[in-house]
Amino acid sequence: MPATAVLLIACPDQRGLVAAIADFLLLHNANIQHADQHQDAELKLFLMRVEWELEGFDLDLAEFPPAFQPIAGRFGMAWRLAESARKPRMAVLVSRFDHCLADLLYRYQSGELHCELPLVLSNHEDTRWLADAYHVPYQHLAVHRDARQEAEQTQLAILRDLDIDFLVLARYMQVLSADFIRHFPQRIINIHHSFLPAFHGAKPYHRAFERGVKLIGATAHYVTETLDDGPIIEQDVARISHRDSLDDLIHKGADLEKVVLSRAVKWHLDNRVLVYANKTVVFD
Amino acid sequence: MPATAVLLIACPDQRGLVAAIADFLLLHNANIQHADQHQDAELKLFLMRVEWELEGFDLDLAEFPPAFQPIAGRFGMAWRLAESARKPRMAVLVSRFDHCLADLLYRYQSGELHCELPLVLSNHEDTRWLADAYHVPYQHLAVHRDARQEAEQTQLAILRDLDIDFLVLARYMQVLSADFIRHFPQRIINIHHSFLPAFHGAKPYHRAFERGVKLIGATAHYVTETLDDGPIIEQDVARISHRDSLDDLIHKGADLEKVVLSRAVKWHLDNRVLVYANKTVVFD
Amino acid sequence: MPATAVLLIACPDQRGLVAAIADFLLLHNANIQHADQHQDAELKLFLMRVEWELEGFDLDLAEFPPAFQPIAGRFGMAWRLAESARKPRMAVLVSRFDHCLADLLYRYQSGELHCELPLVLSNHEDTRWLADAYHVPYQHLAVHRDARQEAEQTQLAILRDLDIDFLVLARYMQVLSADFIRHFPQRIINIHHSFLPAFHGAKPYHRAFERGVKLIGATAHYVTETLDDGPIIEQDVARISHRDSLDDLIHKGADLEKVVLSRAVKWHLDNRVLVYANKTVVFD
Amino acid sequence: MPATAVLLIACPDQRGLVAAIADFLLLHNANIQHADQHQDAELKLFLMRVEWELEGFDLDLAEFPPAFQPIAGRFGMAWRLAESARKPRMAVLVSRFDHCLADLLYRYQSGELHCELPLVLSNHEDTRWLADAYHVPYQHLAVHRDARQEAEQTQLAILRDLDIDFLVLARYMQVLSADFIRHFPQRIINIHHSFLPAFHGAKPYHRAFERGVKLIGATAHYVTETLDDGPIIEQDVARISHRDSLDDLIHKGADLEKVVLSRAVKWHLDNRVLVYANKTVVFD
Repeated sequence: MPATAVLLIACPDQRGLVAAIADFLLLHNANIQHADQHQDAELKLFLMRVEWELEGFDLDLAEFPPAFQPIAGRFGMAWRLAESARKPRMAVLVSRFDHCLADLLYRYQSGELHCELPLVLSNHEDTRWLADAYHVPYQHLAVHRDARQEAEQTQLAILRDLDIDFLVLARYMQVLSADFIRHFPQRIINIHHSFLPAFHGAKPYHRAFERGVKLIGATAHYVTETLDDGPIIEQDVARISHRDSLDDLIHKGADLEKVVLSRAVKWHLDNRVLVYANKTVVFD
Repeated sequence: MPATAVLLIACPDQRGLVAAIADFLLLHNANIQHADQHQDAELKLFLMRVEWELEGFDLDLAEFPPAFQPIAGRFGMAWRLAESARKPRMAVLVSRFDHCLADLLYRYQSGELHCELPLVLSNHEDTRWLADAYHVPYQHLAVHRDARQEAEQTQLAILRDLDIDFLVLARYMQVLSADFIRHFPQRIINIHHSFLPAFHGAKPYHRAFERGVKLIGATAHYVTETLDDGPIIEQDVARISHRDSLDDLIHKGADLEKVVLSRAVKWHLDNRVLVYANKTVVFD
Repeated sequence: MPATAVLLIACPDQRGLVAAIADFLLLHNANIQHADQHQDAELKLFLMRVEWELEGFDLDLAEFPPAFQPIAGRFGMAWRLAESARKPRMAVLVSRFDHCLADLLYRYQSGELHCELPLVLSNHEDTRWLADAYHVPYQHLAVHRDARQEAEQTQLAILRDLDIDFLVLARYMQVLSADFIRHFPQRIINIHHSFLPAFHGAKPYHRAFERGVKLIGATAHYVTETLDDGPIIEQDVARISHRDSLDDLIHKGADLEKVVLSRAVKWHLDNRVLVYANKTVVFD
Repeated sequence: MPATAVLLIACPDQRGLVAAIADFLLLHNANIQHADQHQDAELKLFLMRVEWELEGFDLDLAEFPPAFQPIAGRFGMAWRLAESARKPRMAVLVSRFDHCLADLLYRYQSGELHCELPLVLSNHEDTRWLADAYHVPYQHLAVHRDARQEAEQTQLAILRDLDIDFLVLARYMQVLSADFIRHFPQRIINIHHSFLPAFHGAKPYHRAFERGVKLIGATAHYVTETLDDGPIIEQDVARISHRDSLDDLIHKGADLEKVVLSRAVKWHLDNRVLVYANKTVVFD
């Protein structure tokens, strides 16, 4: 695949936006590969993702910000530029359940996830063998109930040392503090094992089983300070019946969690997700 | 289709149940068409549905209860017998939204719903034309905010006069009183326009839109005294995206509501639904 | 909803397309509501749908073709302009099965389908009562095995008299001749009761049952001269099991057919479907 | 989980079957855990799966055949007995694509698949590292175009030496000969990367892309002498759109293949699948 740049834009909706952006890109000889936009009619917002090939584009990306600033300023844009050649550095946080980790490792190894993976960080030793099998560095850091703050400081230092951009909580069973989360705004993805907002919080499968629902779900979302309340990136469900025991729910749910989390991670890495108003636009 | 009888059984799980029931039916020369059973391992319950042809069965159904009583008593069974030849008398309660009513009327007319339909009862006049088109009797009964109890008394009288067995709330926008509900235990089906328990209560599509979910749902359940908390019979979901406005959610949801409600009504009418522990077994 | 115009474009992919179109619309003060584009990387095609509000747009739509021609010519565009204020005139062709017809009539009446519906045309009398219920004109025209050509000529005359733009085959059981089809290129939608290309041709449910598939499907497509081979607009499936008889397949399939056909018809009427290379782009 | 026995039965449908089986099991003090039956109305067949706990069952399983023979003979039953304590010995055949293998290995290691896995057999070396990571024996055996018969003889010898009961073709790209298949009747499961019978044979994703379908599928089936024509165990589909390239189809399809194949393998290992008339009953 050729090297590309991706521009993500959010601003008040107004006449002339598409023309201004398209003219700017054409002026610099961009060959647009994909362009997708969305207007939120209620909030009167314009949201856009545009991706172009860098070959032939006559503007060095280091010079992009000053060159684009007049347009961004005129329309009041919040914007972000990403290069396909620069792979984000991802860390996976995991506890004892290993199905999501195994899935992410396989997809990373197969080239499906466009990232570096310099770290699996766990509060247990159980999943080290999996990281070893895929030759991914693994660090174990116990988190004691009465020393969470210290543990988080150590975690943050490790993540800083490794230049980690982006965290995936792959059934990580510790609640992160607001302070920790502020270091990675809209850059922590969690998988919750229910169809949010149903069954937020602990033991969702137990509660789904007790309530007698006919479908179970999983939700991938960005982590915010309010538990299980961040912007939803992806959700899916699976049908169950009275024949399914609680264990069956947990097993069927594991398959859902894997696929929902991996889709969300992939979309994030491909710069397809734009957050606004505690929601996401997932450009396809 | 030949005339059949259906026996629904719930009792503590124990050795010899299947043999006792099968021997009893064989003794009376029953030709079993379908037999399905379920053990709830946690509650140690045995639940069964068995259907047999009446042709050749040498026991008059009026004599079934005394003949079966020794077995039922020995195993502590709660049981219920239904005859395919006797169609339940169903009433549909509706307010202004007509999509579920239109769907039920079409299915009733086409023979898909095994019931009589002597009444559509509404607190508005809006949907009379639809009932007329399908030649189904329609009654309008206004429900005033400060005279709900009187309205319910009138409704109960109408339902009694028409020997109604079973009620369907087809997007009926009034909350029924506990007293009213007690007249139809496990014989009122409601469609709620969300994936319960998410968004129970009012305006679920508005709240789903605001939360930014990626799937919307619908839930058919038996009505109990606690709002939106009764045993769930069926649920389904549809995918939405950021491109969908609130109006799109409402439109896509309407298609879900129709199909989820009609499945639940059909299963109820076919004596496939058994309630226990605020859950349902839907025998297929 | 405000009056809008929709422009659908297909042309060889090349630099400057988006800018040229956006600049043209901005020049005439268009307020773009939706813009969506697609590049077919293999065929090197650019496909676009753009919709803008007519209020404030300073070009009379009658003058649009000459004004847009220089751009269209420069880029080699095939294009089509549609106005939301002009509702297409649709006819539904139907035989004896009435589920798709009932569904379309309900959606038409509820305002979900953006069209006029001056005709239901059938080779049987069975469904007249449904059209009557919705106050839609119904014509019966018998099609005799040895006089198909004459029948088609009469049909064409009726359609011409009523200025019909667009036909829906709602389980219409007659195969249309190539000559007939040529009068409505990409303007006849058929529902086929299988997941095409599986089980094209006759009796798909029988063959699905015999093959022991675990899912059944339905396909809405534009009619072309080759049977069941036209561009697919929409497909969906439903799960079945060994418990489902052939009759169950037919019943479950009917629900699929309704929803798949109605989606395709709605998207066509909303000018969301663009055909190329015997495929469709469905802009969402 | 307690040790259990599973009895699978197929015979002509007739009065007294359930009573005879239930009485026999009760006579030997069986505690039935699950019993499920199915009548094929068209073929007038009775199919049953019954599972009971071995604790308390007073018949040694070695004596089961002579003890059960009188009943089996009277009703003309084909039957099969399986013990949960005896794990089938499974081999996975694989070529270069490794996604299904990775998924099976993970599920095997996690205890989800009730089997021994003494062999991964491949005509390539590419996937050896995966088997090594999970400590599963791997053998490479090249299959040359002009020496297929010899290769199959070697494969059969290897499988015989290892007492293999059951084969899984996890995207194995060689067509097996009728002679080879006869060694494992209804004991080879293949995953085909389309929704059969659509796109049987080679390159299904290419053909699906070209046809412009809106859903792609995967099918797990028992291998018979006719290519892609054996009894279907499980199928599923995923939605695609015009935005999906051929590569996207292949990636999305890989996720389908994994989950469809693993479900089929699990059901086979749990003795839930009964084949008749080139179809399957999957008891749930």
